[in-house]
Amino acid sequence: MNVKSTNITWHEGNLTRDERWKSLNVKGCTLWFTGLSASGKSTIASALEQVLVNQGVHSYRLDGDNIRFGLNKNLGFSAEDRAENIRRIGEVCKLFTDNGSITLASFISPYFADRDEARRVHEDAGLEFYEVFADTPIEECEKRDPKGLYKKARAGEIKGFTGIDDPYEAPKNAALHLKPGDFTVDENVQQCLEFLVSKGFLQTANA
Amino acid sequence: MNVKSTNITWHEGNLTRDERWKSLNVKGCTLWFTGLSASGKSTIASALEQVLVNQGVHSYRLDGDNIRFGLNKNLGFSAEDRAENIRRIGEVCKLFTDNGSITLASFISPYFADRDEARRVHEDAGLEFYEVFADTPIEECEKRDPKGLYKKARAGEIKGFTGIDDPYEAPKNAALHLKPGDFTVDENVQQCLEFLVSKGFLQTANA
Repeated sequence: MNVKSTNITWHEGNLTRDERWKSLNVKGCTLWFTGLSASGKSTIASALEQVLVNQGVHSYRLDGDNIRFGLNKNLGFSAEDRAENIRRIGEVCKLFTDNGSITLASFISPYFADRDEARRVHEDAGLEFYEVFADTPIEECEKRDPKGLYKKARAGEIKGFTGIDDPYEAPKNAALHLKPGDFTVDENVQQCLEFLVSKGFLQTANA
Repeated sequence: MNVKSTNITWHEGNLTRDERWKSLNVKGCTLWFTGLSASGKSTIASALEQVLVNQGVHSYRLDGDNIRFGLNKNLGFSAEDRAENIRRIGEVCKLFTDNGSITLASFISPYFADRDEARRVHEDAGLEFYEVFADTPIEECEKRDPKGLYKKARAGEIKGFTGIDDPYEAPKNAALHLKPGDFTVDENVQQCLEFLVSKGFLQTANA
C-alpha cells in the first residue's frame, strides 16, 4: 500500500460532540414514542423518519423490527427482560443522539420507571430526551388490532398483554401529547415537526 | 398547536436503506479494529474518526468508553459475558452502518467466533464488515502498557488477560492488516483512508 505523509489533522483525545455536530451540521435528540399496541406510534414514527430524511435531516428509527430480532433477540417477556429490553434501547438511542441523529424510538414501553431510566441516561450524557405519548384509547386500539393480538390476549392466548392483563402507565408530562385517533398521520407528523422546530432541532416544519 | 395540512410525503412501509443513503449522501460500513490491549487500535480509530468527520463524512466510533459503562454495563468478564459483549456491539455496529455511518469498532475482541458472528449479522443484513487487524507484537504492547495492565496481569492481579493468560486469536484474513508499531498514527490512518477509498466508501484519501 502506498503510504505517504499527508496533512491530516487530528488531536489527542477524542472528537468532541461539538466538533462532530458542527462539522456534520447535525443536532441530535431522542423522541421516545410510547403508547399501546396499535396506537399508531410506529406509523407516525416511520412517516416522520421519511419526512426528515427526505429533507436531508439525519434521523434514525429504532423499533421492534430492528431491535427484537437483533440486539435484543436474547430477551423474553419476563418483567426483568422487559426492563432490560428498554434499558438497552435507551442506551442505543443515546449513542445515535450523540451521533447527531434525530432518534425515533417506538416501543410500547409501558412502565414509568423504564422510560425514566432511558431519560436519565440521556440527561447524564447532556442529551435531550422527549417523551411522545401516542394517546389512542384502548377501545380504538382494540378495534384496529391489525395483528389480532388484542383478540388473542382477550382469549387468554397471550399473557401479560399491555392494556389487557398488564398495566400501561401513561406519561403524566409527555413533551408531546399526540391523539393519533383524532388526526391523520400527516397531521400527527406535522405536530412532531413543529415540536422539533420549537425545540431548535429543525429549521422549518414545512416539508 | 397550529396544525395544518402540508405537502409532506411518505409512503406505506418504512424508509428503505437506499432511500436513506441517497437522500443523506452517505454509505455505511463497519471497520472492526481488533488487536491486543495497547496495540494502538483505539488511537488509530479515534484519529480516523476525526479525519472523516472533519471532512464531513459521517463516522461514529464505538469503544470501551461509550459501551462498557452504558449498553454493556451489566456484563462482566466471564466467557459468556465476553461473547455477549461483542455480540451486542456487533448488533449496534449493524444499526449505525445501516444508518449510513462509517462505523469504527475498537475492541480487543480476541476470539474468531465472536468476530465472525459480528460479521455474520452484517452480511445477513446486506452490509459490509471489514476486519482491521492492529498487529502490534505483544512485547511492544507490554512495553507501552499505558494503564499498567500487563504489569498487573503478569503479577497475577488480573486474571484472564488477553495475550498473557487468555488467548488472542489473530485474524487470518483481515481486510486491512495494520502494523501500528512500524508506522506513525498518521500513516496508519492514511492506510485506513486508502482502504475506504478502494472499497468505494470514500471519494478521496487526501484529507
